[in-house]
Amino acid sequence: MDIAAEMRAMAQAARAASRRLAAAEGSARRQALLGLADLLGARAQALFAANARDVDAARARGLDQARLDRLAITEGVLGSMIQGCREVAAMSDPVGEIESMKKRPNGMLVGRMRVPLGVVAMIFESRPNALVDAAALCIKSGNAAILRGGSEAFHSLSALAATIHDALEAAGLPRECVQTPPTADRQAVTELLKLDEYIDVVIPRGGEGLIRAVVEQAKMPVLKHYKGVCHTFVDETADLARAVDIVLNAKAQRPGTCNALECLLVHRAVAGTFLPLVAERLGAAGVRFKCCPEALPLLAARCTTAEAAQDDDWGREFLSLTLAVKVVADLDEALEHIARFGSNHTEAILTESHKNAMRFTREADASMVAVNASTRLNDGGELGLGAEIGISTTKLHAYGPMGILELMSAKFVALGQGQIRQ
Amino acid sequence: MDIAAEMRAMAQAARAASRRLAAAEGSARRQALLGLADLLGARAQALFAANARDVDAARARGLDQARLDRLAITEGVLGSMIQGCREVAAMSDPVGEIESMKKRPNGMLVGRMRVPLGVVAMIFESRPNALVDAAALCIKSGNAAILRGGSEAFHSLSALAATIHDALEAAGLPRECVQTPPTADRQAVTELLKLDEYIDVVIPRGGEGLIRAVVEQAKMPVLKHYKGVCHTFVDETADLARAVDIVLNAKAQRPGTCNALECLLVHRAVAGTFLPLVAERLGAAGVRFKCCPEALPLLAARCTTAEAAQDDDWGREFLSLTLAVKVVADLDEALEHIARFGSNHTEAILTESHKNAMRFTREADASMVAVNASTRLNDGGELGLGAEIGISTTKLHAYGPMGILELMSAKFVALGQGQIRQ
Repeated sequence: MDIAAEMRAMAQAARAASRRLAAAEGSARRQALLGLADLLGARAQALFAANARDVDAARARGLDQARLDRLAITEGVLGSMIQGCREVAAMSDPVGEIESMKKRPNGMLVGRMRVPLGVVAMIFESRPNALVDAAALCIKSGNAAILRGGSEAFHSLSALAATIHDALEAAGLPRECVQTPPTADRQAVTELLKLDEYIDVVIPRGGEGLIRAVVEQAKMPVLKHYKGVCHTFVDETADLARAVDIVLNAKAQRPGTCNALECLLVHRAVAGTFLPLVAERLGAAGVRFKCCPEALPLLAARCTTAEAAQDDDWGREFLSLTLAVKVVADLDEALEHIARFGSNHTEAILTESHKNAMRFTREADASMVAVNASTRLNDGGELGLGAEIGISTTKLHAYGPMGILELMSAKFVALGQGQIRQ
Repeated sequence: MDIAAEMRAMAQAARAASRRLAAAEGSARRQALLGLADLLGARAQALFAANARDVDAARARGLDQARLDRLAITEGVLGSMIQGCREVAAMSDPVGEIESMKKRPNGMLVGRMRVPLGVVAMIFESRPNALVDAAALCIKSGNAAILRGGSEAFHSLSALAATIHDALEAAGLPRECVQTPPTADRQAVTELLKLDEYIDVVIPRGGEGLIRAVVEQAKMPVLKHYKGVCHTFVDETADLARAVDIVLNAKAQRPGTCNALECLLVHRAVAGTFLPLVAERLGAAGVRFKCCPEALPLLAARCTTAEAAQDDDWGREFLSLTLAVKVVADLDEALEHIARFGSNHTEAILTESHKNAMRFTREADASMVAVNASTRLNDGGELGLGAEIGISTTKLHAYGPMGILELMSAKFVALGQGQIRQ
């Protein structure tokens, strides 16, 4: 196979399909998503069988259990894919929507009409159901998609892609609206990243290595989702009983995610009261602590999993039940620590001081800043966007969870009655 | 001078200044702009003298009159700089603004707070007053700026930059909020474009060559302002008397601009009536026509400046009093022509058909789509954004004129009372 030629043909077909998808009625896009939900249900056994081939091969190659779990399409995973398609289908059609039209002094009405970006490429390492989630968001927003998943999920992704194609065609839309490279060869990615003539944006989802490689190679803009080094600052006025609930949730509810808590900052005035609570509650949940010298004795007195932090534990994304803990003098020191070690993902303050809450929301530089809430809430669903295609940690185009609207742009529409430039 | 080290130091200083500028009160940013307006007025003679050095040197080097005109800071140019600063100062402070906060089912309030992008670099070839316009927009939006103009304006830009520095310091803000490289050496640009660690976005303003060079070299995102190949389609139901006024304005009011009309598309049903009007009115204004075979006799019968178009006249940005003219069968052919030859800048339809107006606004792919209005109205001031820093012709981050809000991002703010992830 000439991979360069194949990828160019794929990108050209995506560009052509994107025009038809954007010009289609919203009812066709909606029908494609409802049809996809139905087909996924009807073909459950075939999808499980294709997935079993991937899982068996991965197990034979010795993939660890965590990765096998991610690879598996269970009844529950399939059910959430189907539900996701139905939820996205039910949203109002965003293509061609105009938020408001204002009248200029010359009488011309000026508004901004939402338009698709065009062709979106996503390179992902995560669960195979990311294919269906991303396809649903792209179809709804009128974008053609080229979706490239991990090679270990090749059969699962092929079976899901075939299902998406059938749903598109049943709704009168081109199957090229959603394409997956027909090869597990990595050269396919390299070639796609050259085709800025046809692909408008690329979204890498996965480890830092993948993201850096895509940024390095891509000729088109990249929406980056770097690591999540999330902090929570417990201020001296915090409600400490509530604070320990929030911190426990942020750290332990699902520690492997990018919005999980990695570093707890505690105001010196309450460290002596609060850290023993943390040692008990989080210690009981299996959390290990990497502590600054001041925090260490307070934690070590109540649990067996506290040890001194090393320099590189600050700013580290543990993605596990490990938590860095530091005592700080005040809000200033907390904000300085976050400015130095944060990753622009999620930062939280727990406080009863309105002044400190307002200052923190303004000065902490992150895609979500929370007051008296868990960092785990930085998620498209929790923030009201519906499904998300990733969380952008840079400020260009989108900052934070990316839903349907973040996959779109807006053009100016000017409705006149003969207006000219004076 | 070690230009690489100088530029790195400049970018680092910009990053530090951007934090102070963003954290400052809106009143300080406002005061800097009002102070700048006053200082520009007070130093008029010194600014004219610095500009005269550039103009004299450029004339001695044989620069053409059009470029000399662009280089000159006249009383009128200075007056509009001063007025621009006052207008931007008068706008409400966008930094930290939250458009709306919605309540989630769990009771948490979620909104989006406007935040600066950080450090904006602009590489420009245009008039020296672009320095003041860009500085004003960046200061207002809380962004530090590195502004690099053409070497022929070196003394003018240095004098303007010194004035900006004095205004910043008088308002208690760091002078490093706005910096200009202290050398005319082109290596300065090359070095700046490597510093994605400190510079968040680069905006090239100038000819296509400049823009392509910046896109090629820049490691940070580029907001591109490519050429403006703008079309106007005169539909069969157009009010032809009004249409000729609009077309005349679009082509001739200021033909050297990116939103000037470059290609007129005329529905066959009205070509015989409309093109003679065009020949008379635009011909009298000095317009030359490059015509398709069908349009040529209709124009040539009424003026002496009509000739057959060459293949490369379609999709060409003339930037002069030359207009390509093509007769088309219908709206479909007009939209096809625009899809093939347009540059995503500005497209207009002149029609009395509501159906065709709506279809055109939806299907023409451009940063502004106009109905019954001049393409020249695609401008930040005309569309209600206030001043603009450029017109983006790509869909990522901003599409169309970029004002203050387009120099900003928005982070999620979540105000809770103990919310956790379920």
